[in-house]
This record gives sequence, C-alpha cells and structure tokens, in this order.
Amino acid sequence: MNNYEQLEKIIGYSFNSKSLLLEAITHSSYAYEKKLKKNYERLEFLGDAVLQLIITEYMIIKYKDLNEGVLSQYRSFFVSEDFISEIAKKINLYNFIRLGKGEIVTGGNRKPSLLADTFESLLAAVYLDGGYNEARRIVLELMSDLIDEYIQGKKVIDPKTELQKITQKEFGYLPEYRIVKEEGPEHDKVFTVEVKLHNCTFLGTGKNKKKAEMDAAKKALDHIQSIVKAD
Amino acid sequence: MNNYEQLEKIIGYSFNSKSLLLEAITHSSYAYEKKLKKNYERLEFLGDAVLQLIITEYMIIKYKDLNEGVLSQYRSFFVSEDFISEIAKKINLYNFIRLGKGEIVTGGNRKPSLLADTFESLLAAVYLDGGYNEARRIVLELMSDLIDEYIQGKKVIDPKTELQKITQKEFGYLPEYRIVKEEGPEHDKVFTVEVKLHNCTFLGTGKNKKKAEMDAAKKALDHIQSIVKAD
Repeated sequence: MNNYEQLEKIIGYSFNSKSLLLEAITHSSYAYEKKLKKNYERLEFLGDAVLQLIITEYMIIKYKDLNEGVLSQYRSFFVSEDFISEIAKKINLYNFIRLGKGEIVTGGNRKPSLLADTFESLLAAVYLDGGYNEARRIVLELMSDLIDEYIQGKKVIDPKTELQKITQKEFGYLPEYRIVKEEGPEHDKVFTVEVKLHNCTFLGTGKNKKKAEMDAAKKALDHIQSIVKAD
Repeated sequence: MNNYEQLEKIIGYSFNSKSLLLEAITHSSYAYEKKLKKNYERLEFLGDAVLQLIITEYMIIKYKDLNEGVLSQYRSFFVSEDFISEIAKKINLYNFIRLGKGEIVTGGNRKPSLLADTFESLLAAVYLDGGYNEARRIVLELMSDLIDEYIQGKKVIDPKTELQKITQKEFGYLPEYRIVKEEGPEHDKVFTVEVKLHNCTFLGTGKNKKKAEMDAAKKALDHIQSIVKAD
C-alpha cells in the first residue's frame, strides 16, 4: 500500500482522481522545488467554505435551542486553525503532506497553520471528487463528538467565550471588559483588566489586553463554578 | 395565487415545508408582534454558509487561472450586503418579508441589511427543504452572469480592489497606500493619500483614509486606462 492509499484508508474514501488527492497534499514549497503547477492553495480556499457549511448545518439542525449568536461563536472556534489542526493530527495528516526541503527541515508538517490548511484542501478534494455527502461524512466522523462535547459543556473552549455563553444564558447580557491599569516599560507591559458580573468584579492581568481579559474571565468562571458546586 | 406562491414562482422552487418558507421571510419584529417563536435569524446563519460555498465553488471551477488571493477578494464582494441586497431586489424580495409595524413605517423592507439577510435565510430554507443543488441553481441563475461580468472586468467593483487585481496580475505586487497629509479641524479633516506604481505617484483626497485611498486608486486606474487606450 503506498502512502496515498494509506491516507485514503484513514479517511475511508478512495479518490476517482488521484491527481486531485495529490494536489490537495502538495504544499507550495514542494510544488516550487519540483516545478509543479499546482499546490493546495486553491483547494484550501474551497475547503474552507465546505467545512464552514458542514459545521453550520450540523449545529443548526442538532442544536435547535441555541440562537445564531451563540452558534456563531462556536463556529468560529470549530473552523479555527487551533481546532482544525488538532483534527488533522487525528488522521496523521503530517505524514502525507508533500513539503519542500526547507519546510521539512523546519518541521513544517507540524505547523498548525499548515496542518489546518491541508485538512481543508483535502476536504475540498473529497467534495469535488465525491460530493458534499462524502465530505460531510468525513468531517462529522472526525468532529461531531468533539463539537457535541464543547457545546454540551463537557469541554471548555476558552474562558472568555465560555463566560459569555453563561452570562448570556443566565443573565441575558454579555460581559464587558475594561482596562483599569497599564504599567511597566513598553517592552514589558502588564495590563490589568476588570470584568463585572452583577455586583462582583474580577481582575485579570496579562502581557497584553487579550491575555488580561482571558485571566479575568477565568477568575469569573472559577467563581461561578465554586457557587454551582456549593449549591 | 397567494403571496408565498408568488415568491415560489419567482425563484422556481416549491417548498415541501411551507412553514420553513414562512420562517425564512419572518423578521424578528414581526415574530415579536405576533408572538411567533421563529424568525429568520437562525436560517440566515446557515444561508450565509450555503451562499459562500456556492459562490466559491462556482469561481474555483470556472476561473482556473485565478489564484485564491484574487478569488478571495471577489468572494468578499459577492457575499457582501451591497451585492446581495441588489440580488434580493431582482426577485422583489421586499414584497414578501414579514415585518413588524415599526419596521414597516421606517421602510425596513428596503434596508440593504434586511434584504441581504432575508435572501440568505431564503437560501437556507431552500437548502434544507430541497438540497444543495436547488439552492445552487437559484443562486447561479441570479448571480452567475454578474459574477462573470465583474471577474471578466466588464463591471468594476471598487477602485482599490480593481487596482489591486491589475497590479497583482501585471506587476506581481500589491499597491501600497501612504497618508501624506492630514489637515483641517477634527470634525472636518481632509486626508491626502498617495499610491505608487512603478515610477508614478497618484494622490487622492477624502474625508477619511479610506475615501482618500479610493480616490488615489481611481486616479491610478484612470491613468492605466488612458495608457491602455493609447496602446
């Protein structure tokens, strides 16, 4: 069994057009070295849209009680490089990407961006070769359990998103963050941010605004969870 | 023929589930007034992804020589509120949107955002009721000629996008804009921006940076066109 047959076996799909499969796993660095005309970038552009539709459709049909605002936050996460690169690792996609020598030396096949891009291009190739239902089957086999775990709260996305979900559901408003302090020299700043929930104020610190907000959200979540447990 | 049958006739699709069609054209203001549980917002969230895939697929298959960077710019335009609301007008969608009284008074059914949103929700309803191919047929019947006209240069999107397309194709680089002057009081500023192409510099002015850039791009395009005509 050659390399590509292995990949086909893993995703459970055999391509009619093997050249489409090859295109999907060809990084621009490899195409450049080998003087090939095609790399995976155009496919990736299509795959991004295929993935977006599959995930949106899955959530809209399964989670009828969640409004589009909440679903939209989840979707951002489920199509993110972070999330998709983890999915790509599940199918050992790094073993199959055709990379140029320079990229191999620097461990390109482990870069999250490259893994996520190749996953999307592979998905587009399946879509073009075998249709939407095949692409959907592959995505849902790999992702639906995880999507459910996140939406059902068994896994947590990030403190800010999680906090937002809770305040919107329980209190009907979104948390607001405010920078209360910025200290230290330019290259070594520390930001302090506060987030208020009812009468409680939570402070977070970090090297930039986002990290300070995450920290504040984390403290607010810890507080909420300690209340829930005490109930 | 009732109102909804007219809409079905216009788009050439008869719904199995009329309640899905109704959901797709129900604005939140109407749902609120009539105490209905559903408005079009969840469908719109799905429709956005359906539209994105249809347009991406169309461009990727038809325009094999355009790279994903150029296609991505076009896609942004083809899924924009501006563009989609014009498409919605072509099928007189404003006649069919169910609006609350307040929205009717303020001409809500002519708002571009509302027209674009309803078009997307209608598309999602077709997708769920009749499948992807039906949704694609409707979109392409309404849009493919326009998409072609823009991509083939018979219509122009906006000067900045157009200029970018040309410089990327002809010179292999993207235009860079630089603010060279900012004058006048805070409430009445005039920005001057320059864009350089080879040895030529074009200046544009406007009340904000974006307008000044558009003006500069327009002048660069006028210059290029005068050269092309003189050729």
